[in-house]
Amino acid sequence: MKFVKNDQTAVFALGGLGEIGKNTYGIQFQDEIVLVDAGIKFPEDELLGIDYVIPDYTYLVQNQDKVKGLFITHGHEDHIGGIPYLLRDINVPIYAGKLAIGLIRNKLEEHGLLRSTQLYTIEEDTVIKFRKTSVSFFRTTHSIPDSFGIVVKTPPGNIVQTGDFKFDFTPVGQPANLAKMAELGQEGVLCLLSDSTNSEVPGFTMSEQVVGDNINDIFSRVDGRLIFATFASNIYRLQQVVQAAVKHDRKIAVFGRSMESSIRIGQELGYIQAPNDTFIDANQISRLPAHKVTILCTGSQGEPMAALSRIANGTHRQIQIIPGDTVVFSSSPIPGNTVSVSRTINKLYRAGADVIHGKLSNIHTSGHGSQDEQKLMLRLMQPKYFMPIHGEYRMLKEHLKLGEACGIDPNHSFVMDNGDVLALGKDNAMIAGKIPSGSIYVDGSGIGDIGNIVLRDRRILSEEGLVMVVVSINMKEFKIASGPDIISRGFVYMRESEDLINEAQKLVAKHLKKVMERRTSQWSEIKNEITDTISPFLFEKTKRRPMVLPIIMEI
Amino acid sequence: MKFVKNDQTAVFALGGLGEIGKNTYGIQFQDEIVLVDAGIKFPEDELLGIDYVIPDYTYLVQNQDKVKGLFITHGHEDHIGGIPYLLRDINVPIYAGKLAIGLIRNKLEEHGLLRSTQLYTIEEDTVIKFRKTSVSFFRTTHSIPDSFGIVVKTPPGNIVQTGDFKFDFTPVGQPANLAKMAELGQEGVLCLLSDSTNSEVPGFTMSEQVVGDNINDIFSRVDGRLIFATFASNIYRLQQVVQAAVKHDRKIAVFGRSMESSIRIGQELGYIQAPNDTFIDANQISRLPAHKVTILCTGSQGEPMAALSRIANGTHRQIQIIPGDTVVFSSSPIPGNTVSVSRTINKLYRAGADVIHGKLSNIHTSGHGSQDEQKLMLRLMQPKYFMPIHGEYRMLKEHLKLGEACGIDPNHSFVMDNGDVLALGKDNAMIAGKIPSGSIYVDGSGIGDIGNIVLRDRRILSEEGLVMVVVSINMKEFKIASGPDIISRGFVYMRESEDLINEAQKLVAKHLKKVMERRTSQWSEIKNEITDTISPFLFEKTKRRPMVLPIIMEI
Repeated sequence: MKFVKNDQTAVFALGGLGEIGKNTYGIQFQDEIVLVDAGIKFPEDELLGIDYVIPDYTYLVQNQDKVKGLFITHGHEDHIGGIPYLLRDINVPIYAGKLAIGLIRNKLEEHGLLRSTQLYTIEEDTVIKFRKTSVSFFRTTHSIPDSFGIVVKTPPGNIVQTGDFKFDFTPVGQPANLAKMAELGQEGVLCLLSDSTNSEVPGFTMSEQVVGDNINDIFSRVDGRLIFATFASNIYRLQQVVQAAVKHDRKIAVFGRSMESSIRIGQELGYIQAPNDTFIDANQISRLPAHKVTILCTGSQGEPMAALSRIANGTHRQIQIIPGDTVVFSSSPIPGNTVSVSRTINKLYRAGADVIHGKLSNIHTSGHGSQDEQKLMLRLMQPKYFMPIHGEYRMLKEHLKLGEACGIDPNHSFVMDNGDVLALGKDNAMIAGKIPSGSIYVDGSGIGDIGNIVLRDRRILSEEGLVMVVVSINMKEFKIASGPDIISRGFVYMRESEDLINEAQKLVAKHLKKVMERRTSQWSEIKNEITDTISPFLFEKTKRRPMVLPIIMEI
Repeated sequence: MKFVKNDQTAVFALGGLGEIGKNTYGIQFQDEIVLVDAGIKFPEDELLGIDYVIPDYTYLVQNQDKVKGLFITHGHEDHIGGIPYLLRDINVPIYAGKLAIGLIRNKLEEHGLLRSTQLYTIEEDTVIKFRKTSVSFFRTTHSIPDSFGIVVKTPPGNIVQTGDFKFDFTPVGQPANLAKMAELGQEGVLCLLSDSTNSEVPGFTMSEQVVGDNINDIFSRVDGRLIFATFASNIYRLQQVVQAAVKHDRKIAVFGRSMESSIRIGQELGYIQAPNDTFIDANQISRLPAHKVTILCTGSQGEPMAALSRIANGTHRQIQIIPGDTVVFSSSPIPGNTVSVSRTINKLYRAGADVIHGKLSNIHTSGHGSQDEQKLMLRLMQPKYFMPIHGEYRMLKEHLKLGEACGIDPNHSFVMDNGDVLALGKDNAMIAGKIPSGSIYVDGSGIGDIGNIVLRDRRILSEEGLVMVVVSINMKEFKIASGPDIISRGFVYMRESEDLINEAQKLVAKHLKKVMERRTSQWSEIKNEITDTISPFLFEKTKRRPMVLPIIMEI
């Protein structure tokens, strides 16, 4: 990094700025790079068929000898999902809390990368020392256990990355370590990188304990079967549901692959504790009276293949809705999922269930701190420089205003883009340059092989369909040997549009004959002639513009 | 309708039950059918490429001699958008308030249907009498002027359809006619069909006047240019923005086709009043100081082609964001548009604008009454039977609970589906049967020609793309004359995946040779062989399942 001076620390993100997801941050001093998190992002709707989005790791590949370690704040996919892809490019030891290590281990096993990777479990008081930098941790509260903020000690000063956090004073699990944060603030924080997710939400985020109370209320008043859907990764929530079920003498059947594995890991690590006979198999449900049954399942986001969606559709192999069932969405829909969640709720009502959902029921709370919590973090850390992270541009901007309200000079605050490099000296800071950054699409086993051309084609195909014109041409005699045939997909249903297709076919045949008479051997000319003939014809008849694909076979 | 007795009135919906949109209701007594509204629905995302959804009008076509008139509650698309399609199927006179007539006239002109259609403007005290039934009106409040509830007098009793409504006691424009509603209730309402849209929202919907106050506040405190985006159809909102601009001595430039036409119609009908020189052309903007400029535009839903989206993208021909600009979203995102609205906000922030949006700024209010307003309607009308309309199943269900709270026997309440026919006698009501109902897709100029097969193809194409295998076969000699060639679209970028394509090509060629040796003349066998060869190969290599299309030309 030529544009960063020798006595400066560079801070950058490959993902997580101006977007929700693919969080990947780097803190570099001279030849030592500390990475914080390696997440994926779930694609927006217009990335048709794309499974995940990961960052461009070019800079890390080019500097892999400098990368000392990957430090994980917590075990959510937008913070650990990129690890298998990163590890294909560079080899780096990974440091994470107990639960995150469990989840990463699973992930690496699936990708066949477990044996070749060094994994280290950290505790809150762990310190990892490199030659010039060192890394330490402080406990935060979030919607998954073992969440940590990360402190990177560098010669110009301490860089603090909060990870995802809220301040829940009555949490499930351990509270955030306010003392250690205050101490860090006293010691001096050169730059704070702080979670901006809820910077547009005023006040304080509701405590997980309130959610627990409301879950208990539901268990107290409902007589029929209880079907709980929530995020599988929210071990605290699972813990609360399990406790409530035990308290109200209900058994629990678990459905959905990620939910099953969360319950298993949660039990293995001691987060979820229940008498041995609490969990039951699907086939035991029917032997119990309704008021003894809890069903804990995936699908709180209306994901079409998840357990709850199958139950709502009536296509689940083991569970059908029966009158008296109550379904609880202990979740809030992620933007983009509102429609599918709504549809699932409608289907459940139609099937005869009662449904408890939505903000008014107070059965879900965010894992991220609202404005007052973000201010508390700023007040505790009292950073010299401030870099809002984790969030869309509007959220970063809003977080900057909160910083200003807490006394941070806006000239000391940096709303950055992925790839921007912040150069931090003891008494100076500036965006000094840019490193490669961008989005790489993962589709099936392909990484980065889907580009804009393929996506553009998918979009046209999805909206207008495809019309193929196939013809065999004898190029020696300039004669049509066979065809033209017209085949379409996603355009019109061919059996019901025979006239249209026949007419188009005749039109093309007529034009092709003329082209042959010109004794053209330019394929591109023939192809253009076909497209120019059929496209306006189809638009006139249907007001649609399908992709037209002329296919010429020379024989 | 055989299943309805001669002394019973039949009430049914062809659209609007269990969904938002395509509102189309029928009230039939013997040989007289009164239609209420003829709306479209905007398609959900998975209806790839579909422009609108309209109801199946089969029942009306079969009974067109009975259809006495189409009565319009108000001029929103989900209540009038279906008119041109309905008129293609049956000829029916249309009765509507002043503004709705203006909007319908525009629409019919575009479709070349204006001259052949009888249009009648109704006032609140208009009564339209048929032989056995008659229709009268009562004024309601909604987010568009000239909104009416409709009363159909039939021998067994009065059927009341509220249209979309709220009770805004301090509205812009005229207040709802509480007296007339109370009188109707005193006279006796056999069945109330009432708007359920906001049945999940507690309390009272905020008054439009509060929105006006907040708009005025913004005008008072902002020094730069003000860019207002809102629903073009909300004439009241436009009126408030225009008034505020006049008051604060700003000129207004209007962008977006629907916004321009709303302002024009609003002025023609006297809803929007402003001094002559208030509205300016785009080219005059640059001649005015920033604090004299208001830009009123479409795009509050993040629609990609709308004025505000182009401005945000920097692709608008006439307007670029300059520092000091403030953009106001006087709207709330419709579910399904949250992501695109959010993206537009981010782009505006990035371009340097300040953005005012969201619930907390109180610059938008719903056009639909919340729970307490729905209860007020129920208390005023005191219906014997109750049919919640306009809304998803969950909303209808919730509305039923509100009815129960207001003393309506749940056995007298009917949560119905489109097509269900409610038979109403003086003292009896039951769902007596079903008429054809369903969704017809409009794509381009095609009505109903896109079915599930085409949509399924579009879905596969959009997610996985297409691979074509083209081969010419000499069927006399059982020889391959040309090919096989492989062409793909939306699958992989072919230039970058030459090896994959070459390998696939060789594999198919090898298999085809064997097939030829078997001297098969069954095309289906050859096609299957191609698909069965290439599909598993491509899945193994890419973990994707493109649509495979074998194309065989016989020569």
